[in-house]
Amino acid sequence: MFEQVRDGAVDIDAAVSRMRHMPFEDLGFAKVDHHRALRHGMPEVILAKGKTPEQVAAIAGRLLENSPNVLITRADRACADLVTNQLQGGEYFPLSGVIRFWRERTIRGKGKIAVVCAGTSDIFVAEEAQLTAEVMGNTVDTIHDIGVAGIHRLMHNRERLMEARVIVVCAGMEGALPSAVGGLVSCPVIAVPTSVGYGASFNGLAALLGMLNSCASNVTVVNIDNGFGAGYVASLINQL
Amino acid sequence: MFEQVRDGAVDIDAAVSRMRHMPFEDLGFAKVDHHRALRHGMPEVILAKGKTPEQVAAIAGRLLENSPNVLITRADRACADLVTNQLQGGEYFPLSGVIRFWRERTIRGKGKIAVVCAGTSDIFVAEEAQLTAEVMGNTVDTIHDIGVAGIHRLMHNRERLMEARVIVVCAGMEGALPSAVGGLVSCPVIAVPTSVGYGASFNGLAALLGMLNSCASNVTVVNIDNGFGAGYVASLINQL
Amino acid sequence: MFEQVRDGAVDIDAAVSRMRHMPFEDLGFAKVDHHRALRHGMPEVILAKGKTPEQVAAIAGRLLENSPNVLITRADRACADLVTNQLQGGEYFPLSGVIRFWRERTIRGKGKIAVVCAGTSDIFVAEEAQLTAEVMGNTVDTIHDIGVAGIHRLMHNRERLMEARVIVVCAGMEGALPSAVGGLVSCPVIAVPTSVGYGASFNGLAALLGMLNSCASNVTVVNIDNGFGAGYVASLINQL
Amino acid sequence: MFEQVRDGAVDIDAAVSRMRHMPFEDLGFAKVDHHRALRHGMPEVILAKGKTPEQVAAIAGRLLENSPNVLITRADRACADLVTNQLQGGEYFPLSGVIRFWRERTIRGKGKIAVVCAGTSDIFVAEEAQLTAEVMGNTVDTIHDIGVAGIHRLMHNRERLMEARVIVVCAGMEGALPSAVGGLVSCPVIAVPTSVGYGASFNGLAALLGMLNSCASNVTVVNIDNGFGAGYVASLINQL
Amino acid sequence: MFEQVRDGAVDIDAAVSRMRHMPFEDLGFAKVDHHRALRHGMPEVILAKGKTPEQVAAIAGRLLENSPNVLITRADRACADLVTNQLQGGEYFPLSGVIRFWRERTIRGKGKIAVVCAGTSDIFVAEEAQLTAEVMGNTVDTIHDIGVAGIHRLMHNRERLMEARVIVVCAGMEGALPSAVGGLVSCPVIAVPTSVGYGASFNGLAALLGMLNSCASNVTVVNIDNGFGAGYVASLINQL
Amino acid sequence: MFEQVRDGAVDIDAAVSRMRHMPFEDLGFAKVDHHRALRHGMPEVILAKGKTPEQVAAIAGRLLENSPNVLITRADRACADLVTNQLQGGEYFPLSGVIRFWRERTIRGKGKIAVVCAGTSDIFVAEEAQLTAEVMGNTVDTIHDIGVAGIHRLMHNRERLMEARVIVVCAGMEGALPSAVGGLVSCPVIAVPTSVGYGASFNGLAALLGMLNSCASNVTVVNIDNGFGAGYVASLINQL
Amino acid sequence: MFEQVRDGAVDIDAAVSRMRHMPFEDLGFAKVDHHRALRHGMPEVILAKGKTPEQVAAIAGRLLENSPNVLITRADRACADLVTNQLQGGEYFPLSGVIRFWRERTIRGKGKIAVVCAGTSDIFVAEEAQLTAEVMGNTVDTIHDIGVAGIHRLMHNRERLMEARVIVVCAGMEGALPSAVGGLVSCPVIAVPTSVGYGASFNGLAALLGMLNSCASNVTVVNIDNGFGAGYVASLINQL
Amino acid sequence: MFEQVRDGAVDIDAAVSRMRHMPFEDLGFAKVDHHRALRHGMPEVILAKGKTPEQVAAIAGRLLENSPNVLITRADRACADLVTNQLQGGEYFPLSGVIRFWRERTIRGKGKIAVVCAGTSDIFVAEEAQLTAEVMGNTVDTIHDIGVAGIHRLMHNRERLMEARVIVVCAGMEGALPSAVGGLVSCPVIAVPTSVGYGASFNGLAALLGMLNSCASNVTVVNIDNGFGAGYVASLINQL
Repeated sequence: MFEQVRDGAVDIDAAVSRMRHMPFEDLGFAKVDHHRALRHGMPEVILAKGKTPEQVAAIAGRLLENSPNVLITRADRACADLVTNQLQGGEYFPLSGVIRFWRERTIRGKGKIAVVCAGTSDIFVAEEAQLTAEVMGNTVDTIHDIGVAGIHRLMHNRERLMEARVIVVCAGMEGALPSAVGGLVSCPVIAVPTSVGYGASFNGLAALLGMLNSCASNVTVVNIDNGFGAGYVASLINQL
Repeated sequence: MFEQVRDGAVDIDAAVSRMRHMPFEDLGFAKVDHHRALRHGMPEVILAKGKTPEQVAAIAGRLLENSPNVLITRADRACADLVTNQLQGGEYFPLSGVIRFWRERTIRGKGKIAVVCAGTSDIFVAEEAQLTAEVMGNTVDTIHDIGVAGIHRLMHNRERLMEARVIVVCAGMEGALPSAVGGLVSCPVIAVPTSVGYGASFNGLAALLGMLNSCASNVTVVNIDNGFGAGYVASLINQL
Repeated sequence: MFEQVRDGAVDIDAAVSRMRHMPFEDLGFAKVDHHRALRHGMPEVILAKGKTPEQVAAIAGRLLENSPNVLITRADRACADLVTNQLQGGEYFPLSGVIRFWRERTIRGKGKIAVVCAGTSDIFVAEEAQLTAEVMGNTVDTIHDIGVAGIHRLMHNRERLMEARVIVVCAGMEGALPSAVGGLVSCPVIAVPTSVGYGASFNGLAALLGMLNSCASNVTVVNIDNGFGAGYVASLINQL
Repeated sequence: MFEQVRDGAVDIDAAVSRMRHMPFEDLGFAKVDHHRALRHGMPEVILAKGKTPEQVAAIAGRLLENSPNVLITRADRACADLVTNQLQGGEYFPLSGVIRFWRERTIRGKGKIAVVCAGTSDIFVAEEAQLTAEVMGNTVDTIHDIGVAGIHRLMHNRERLMEARVIVVCAGMEGALPSAVGGLVSCPVIAVPTSVGYGASFNGLAALLGMLNSCASNVTVVNIDNGFGAGYVASLINQL
Repeated sequence: MFEQVRDGAVDIDAAVSRMRHMPFEDLGFAKVDHHRALRHGMPEVILAKGKTPEQVAAIAGRLLENSPNVLITRADRACADLVTNQLQGGEYFPLSGVIRFWRERTIRGKGKIAVVCAGTSDIFVAEEAQLTAEVMGNTVDTIHDIGVAGIHRLMHNRERLMEARVIVVCAGMEGALPSAVGGLVSCPVIAVPTSVGYGASFNGLAALLGMLNSCASNVTVVNIDNGFGAGYVASLINQL
Repeated sequence: MFEQVRDGAVDIDAAVSRMRHMPFEDLGFAKVDHHRALRHGMPEVILAKGKTPEQVAAIAGRLLENSPNVLITRADRACADLVTNQLQGGEYFPLSGVIRFWRERTIRGKGKIAVVCAGTSDIFVAEEAQLTAEVMGNTVDTIHDIGVAGIHRLMHNRERLMEARVIVVCAGMEGALPSAVGGLVSCPVIAVPTSVGYGASFNGLAALLGMLNSCASNVTVVNIDNGFGAGYVASLINQL
Repeated sequence: MFEQVRDGAVDIDAAVSRMRHMPFEDLGFAKVDHHRALRHGMPEVILAKGKTPEQVAAIAGRLLENSPNVLITRADRACADLVTNQLQGGEYFPLSGVIRFWRERTIRGKGKIAVVCAGTSDIFVAEEAQLTAEVMGNTVDTIHDIGVAGIHRLMHNRERLMEARVIVVCAGMEGALPSAVGGLVSCPVIAVPTSVGYGASFNGLAALLGMLNSCASNVTVVNIDNGFGAGYVASLINQL
Repeated sequence: MFEQVRDGAVDIDAAVSRMRHMPFEDLGFAKVDHHRALRHGMPEVILAKGKTPEQVAAIAGRLLENSPNVLITRADRACADLVTNQLQGGEYFPLSGVIRFWRERTIRGKGKIAVVCAGTSDIFVAEEAQLTAEVMGNTVDTIHDIGVAGIHRLMHNRERLMEARVIVVCAGMEGALPSAVGGLVSCPVIAVPTSVGYGASFNGLAALLGMLNSCASNVTVVNIDNGFGAGYVASLINQL
């Protein structure tokens, strides 16, 4: 821009004005960011929790004008009904609460992402990770119910795990699966503690602390139930 | 006693008096309980932490008059010096802080107790469990450094684990080992969270919560670093 | 297997294939483990919480093909209705939320298990422990409402407690009963903190911490409200 | 004062001035309150923790001019040395860290205060309660080491407990003793959680929560290790 | 009894049998304790929370046979409807959830109990304390909404506070009122943290911690929202 | 008053009586404080949470007799309906739950208050701050959805922020915005953690802790979701 | 800059270079920020905790080249010795750990700042606030030891408090003083929880939570023991 | 192996024996794992904390026989002295406590890893990450002291950050830097909370919670002060 200004190709007012027109659009209650796709190579994402269905639909509508793919997470049924009625092409996954607009399906990931969960009750989180990784252009291999208390189930899937370029592991209760998986493979493991459990699980705190203290060195952690974040980072890694 | 009273073999005052002489001896700062050995089939135990070396030595002296075996836990070097100087036959284990008087060595346990720990740093707790189980008359098999991040080390020891009648598992950090061991065997597993770790281990809280939420059904838990309690209960079970 | 392969009794492909057919069945959302009964000498258990009624019924159906006894815990009314309609022989216990299929009733325990609770409000947990211990082949003696604030109620039941081979003690609020019971008997005591209480009970945390710090050496602890786990371990011990 | 002002016996300036001379003396770093003895019928108390020995000695000196009895709590050896050198008549109790000036020894309490502790390690707190109650004019009966894991030791002291007008109970670890004592007697019980324990005792938190959730209705609680507060309130009650 | 046995007035079997008939009645799900009134000089109390309305009604029915006054706390509307329909003479107070049977109204307290609360939202707890203290035979003076942020409201009521023999202070949020009241009076103050507040009040934890750390020495604390316990202990003190 | 008494203009009884008639009115369940407006230069505020709609309406009615402006916070729809039906001139804002009577609209603030929030979901708190600051006589500039993960949105609004005399910043999740804003400006920043988030946000605890540890020196903090408090203090500052 | 570039007064490389020379100086281990004084109208501050004495001295040396006044907080004796030896004009305050270079002493504050603390033990925090406010150009009035348990000491200082334009209140234990002060005055109150206390004070957590839940609306809060932050914000407010 | 057994090339005993010789060496107190380098493409790492200097030296000695590079973390001076005396080629970094044997220095990473920290006090953690990433074959760019309160320092380094293939961000106090960095770049960000701070930082808990709740989607988290883990995972990612 400096060069353009010096050369007279852009005058000062225009330069200032252009800088003012930042790459986001102001809806009042939200700044819609059309450049995030650009910056992170991915579709914009809307966290529906804490927003009214109308706000979600409005933001999604604007985003779909610029981006083929949009992901909405933590949407309840009422939100999903409004959004899928107002906007074409969205698919709702009630278990995880995801609404996905997946209009551009190029594979960008260089390898396979494995999404693993310890028990049947953790699938709602694993699904969020899977849907995220898919919409970001990855091939995903899902393996459910291979928690450490039945270690032969884990060992049985060892090869599939070793084929992955990055692995997302979702587990509640004691959250031990990421350590066990991490010890079996040499790729990065993204651990997602889930709120599955009762009593001293304290809504996922036990699993979270366990994962943060993993004795496997290749494990990093995201927030409790944050399947989206895990799928997102796994995608970034898989595109490297 | 009712019968003795009716028959006149014991008069009322004597009966009342005998009831007053309960099976403990009052040292003022402590009630020394000579019947616990009787009740639990084991030597009396003294927790040295929070007591002066003089108090520990005084209590130990009284107990040794009635019991061949006495165990003192959490003794520092100063306490150990005083006790082993004043009382003959005590052995001090500085790693775990145990002083053991082991004069009667009958084997009472019906099988083998395995004492397992996840990492080298957990040995100080495992040793407390081992020394306790031994003094209570058990054969103990110790296996160190088989944490879940190197699961082949665990699998390699599977047979030894399956030979045990009850297993004590000590682990810090994420505390995942009891779940993995619990899934491999069908005997009771007593989990001991250790204070090993840093940061979000919160001095053993992470391991404690993990173990309480174990997805293996055969796991029960004792306090952080409580190797003694685990060895004690393992002995009770092994004597059944 | 090595011998069979060498002798030609099993060819390599078959050996590999047999190893692939691990002792679990893959329903997609769950790996049904037909060997657990074998490994732990007990029926398979399904934690209904976090699963849909349909998932619970499907898993239970598969398990009942191989196992005479199946226990489903934490089932709400809707789940119980579906399961007991689809599958014959199940009994629902609404207080504890247990569904029990108890078709094979051999007594396997060598002695009696006592299941004790501190207050009337703790019965829902004690019942889960009792039903578990029973379906695993034990004679169970239940004693309700003998908390420490009325210590004569506890002393009154001292003999029944001393007759047990292992004792499960359920208590909320301050969780003091396991210590008092543990001091009276010499057998293992499994303490179950319950979520009964309010305010600074923090949903069972106070009872949990109290039990972990029990000054009675024969006490181990399971998760808050985990009557199932306590009954399970008590059964393992009673079968030794 | 209104009357004095109207009658001219006191002029306005003097009235205002007199109101300024509130019943405390300003040392700059402390407001020494000579009326508290008056208000609470007891000697002034200084918490030495967080003050320099010089500050403690200065405050104590001023207080001793107006009050025969002064209690200093949580004083370390250095503080005790300075205070007892500078001021005559003080006695230092190193276990509890109390310095006591007890020059006026009238018995004001109407009955006996029992000060009870669960284990030998809790005596340092019980002593603070005992010294406080004595200096406030009470007859104190101390009973040590009667924790709930040996309930016969508690039952053995039942009569002494029933003779008290108010009872202070100090206990660490699971903190169960106040509930058991509270169930045996009908007088008020003041529970003092102590920091005795390790691991999940979290420096007295477990005992504190246990006592707050006591199922005995006659129990109130003070801060962890606050023997002084318990002895103080017990004295107030015993003087009613 | 020993004498009766020796004299032959009571034979051994009868003695044993009589000891078996302890002063409680076993309803299966509850041990109804007819001696507590005797021991504590007060009516039996039922905590309705965690019990079914039918259980509450059954226990209350038995108690009313032996005790003129019965207090039921934490009863919801459904429980209150059943109890007041089945049993005559009960009055329901929906704000605090108390059902009170108050058939014997002798004044036993020697002075006045003040029940104070910091804000209008705390009245539900103060009412529980008031109803308890009244049914135990006390004159109660209630003062509402005198929190420390408007300290002139507190000072305005200073005289009424100083007339009390014991004071119950209920406060949520920062829980500062007991310290301020405690500094004004010289009688015992029983502090009740309430769950009133939001955010960092953590359901009463902030108030609880504040009260436990009160710099006023005459303050003891009960559980969050435990108006009953405060009223109970205040009554015990007022009857001394 | 002293002068009036001396001069005889006011007799003693009247003086005493006048002192009794403190500047609050006693409704029994509440002391209505007509002087707070006087003391803080602002309308009285009612926290509706924990009060019945009838109590809120009664207090509001009395306040409106003396004060033109009244603010009611945390009112649900039922409360709002009753209040706006009974009392004229109130406006209800359902997002924040505020009812505002704004009859006197003088601008008292010397500059502009900026009310900023990190995400769309935080607006419910920002609105409470904005409505409070407005009713206290301030010009408010609101800026929504400028969280730190899109730092260009923050930089884009830098000038508007620098024009403010004091800034309220509302943020949930990691609560990082106040630090970033604080570093950009030199005026006081009042940080409001919000309960927006999930999992390890622990209902606003993460944001609260973050803000308390802000490395920007010009940040102070109020309770989670306490938009009212932030708006209130911002107003006090802006009127200096 | 755009204009200069277009006009050729600055060439592109120089413009880019100038933008690189941001208003901070890079010492490798620290970016020394010479513009902060400019931005916040105050001297730079160094938190010594976590830095070596050499690092502190190096940073302070650079800052003193551009700024007359420098404040160093949390310096221990070793750090203070090095700094005051190497750099002229610094004064060390061992109670609070502050080193102050105060070479320019213009009064910038429009009124008086009161710095208040509840007890003698809180003075170390109050001193940090006082020194900060003074070096930023304010007249400070300090009042020590006026905690709520002796409310007449607070009332006695009411006038001094009402003369302040902004008040800093430091308190440990229950942290009740800010609410009481806040109710007496109408100016902003900045509350500083201190780590003074023991047991359930949890190193200042009790005071922190209490202050965040203050029922006085004019209170905001800073971190535990953060006297510097409170003095800093009070200065910003007093300069408005 | 099956084929070798069938073909007779390996007899059964030898096969069993070979399986017994798992890829680790048993030192009794530790199982030294020579295959981890193989599995993770990196040198073995020893956590010195909790091990005696002798144990560390013994394990390191064995590892150095098979691996050119060895990393020892959390070593104090005594451990470092023993290790560097006994084993040639180790370099000790006292700030982070790392001992590094770096004998093989091939660059394996495909791009640059940036290691960033918020303040000078965080460098001890950043150094651990840097040393780890270097020994694993990466080019590391370190940027210190660019916390969010001086956002121009962050913006000034934007280009360097955008050149990195993966970024490690270390921050204590509020832990906001990873969110800000994450929003600027599109590569994976590994956040390391540090224990830097005081009061409500709770030894890094505040930073940990903040990072787990980051609103930037490309952030994952490791344990408090776990620079090693962050450097390790960054290396794995950079080698993809």
